Amino acid sequence: MKTLKIPEATIIRLSMYSRYLSQVEERGVQMISSGEIAEGVGVSPAHVRKDLAYFGEFGTRGVGYNVDELQHHILNILRLNREWRVVIVGAGHLGSALAMYRGFGERGFHLVGIFDSDPAKIGKKYDDIAVQPIEELAQTVKEKQVGIGIITVPATVAQEVADILVNSGVDALLNFAPCVLNLPPRVELRNVDLSVNLEVLTFHLGSRRKQ
Amino acid sequence: MKTLKIPEATIIRLSMYSRYLSQVEERGVQMISSGEIAEGVGVSPAHVRKDLAYFGEFGTRGVGYNVDELQHHILNILRLNREWRVVIVGAGHLGSALAMYRGFGERGFHLVGIFDSDPAKIGKKYDDIAVQPIEELAQTVKEKQVGIGIITVPATVAQEVADILVNSGVDALLNFAPCVLNLPPRVELRNVDLSVNLEVLTFHLGSRRKQ
Repeated sequence: MKTLKIPEATIIRLSMYSRYLSQVEERGVQMISSGEIAEGVGVSPAHVRKDLAYFGEFGTRGVGYNVDELQHHILNILRLNREWRVVIVGAGHLGSALAMYRGFGERGFHLVGIFDSDPAKIGKKYDDIAVQPIEELAQTVKEKQVGIGIITVPATVAQEVADILVNSGVDALLNFAPCVLNLPPRVELRNVDLSVNLEVLTFHLGSRRKQ
Repeated sequence: MKTLKIPEATIIRLSMYSRYLSQVEERGVQMISSGEIAEGVGVSPAHVRKDLAYFGEFGTRGVGYNVDELQHHILNILRLNREWRVVIVGAGHLGSALAMYRGFGERGFHLVGIFDSDPAKIGKKYDDIAVQPIEELAQTVKEKQVGIGIITVPATVAQEVADILVNSGVDALLNFAPCVLNLPPRVELRNVDLSVNLEVLTFHLGSRRKQ
């Protein structure tokens, strides 16, 4: 598979297709066309066909895709055919929102800890996970073999938190703090900036006004 | 300008460059190279040059870019050369996190209201904005000429909220609810799925293990 050349937009859409296929599976649908996937997700049918073609031919012309097979295939591509253990560092509003976000569990992400340095937040419960003091972060990551750390602390302490996570063995970081993190090349990093989403909107608003 | 053909990844990076240029401006830097921008933001210098080339030549070979000029240009491209009035609907954890997110104000997004249907949340204050009852949403959007609505309500009521926002005149929606919204074509929509970010990470983790 030429997975290394896949554009990020395709990965993001695969993730959307897969979520839609879960809904469709629940309704007992067995076959689906690229047009139906496109409509359900809100992208063009050409995009669906192009995205799926990256990973080989597995639909049947005129019949469409077997839903279970396609779902299985996409989950393999996204490496969601296993459980990923996740910790959240920072139990503020955003960390809390993520801790309560049911979508993670549905996709195989298992939250095993949430950490904060504020004594007032320690012990606060999100479902069955209680906020732990930051001093317990390194040990928890090692003991529970955590693969992914989510950083929702202020930018001023984000590098420090990233260092603890990386030194304890995580493979990947999702960083919501608005700062540039320095990490060893073995660690996969994704920075999420919530205002970027608004700026993509305003860009498009500007573009269409020119039409 | 051939703005309509710009890939979304470029728009997202422009937004990152611009944020980095703000930091650099504060330090009094006047000229900057594509290599310095690349390092500051964490992308390749080739990407920086390619992204900026979409919008014409405005650097000087061997000298680099004038920071103020480049920043002004990017803010124009992203339509951040004006104020955008924003409301948040849903004052749960995520809505609260977004209401407290200082990054929005820095980029010209002015939060003018936050709404919820839960009486227990009405009146709760985020900086100087108090949560209003959902019944006041339509009137506020009209009176304050709100351009962008951010939806952080549960999926079950997201379409209903979107309809109120659209009928009251917003131009764009940022939707965090995990569902497909039906909107008239004049409205710009961006769906944000927080678990997609984790899936892009796991995809890349899988790809590198195959190397």
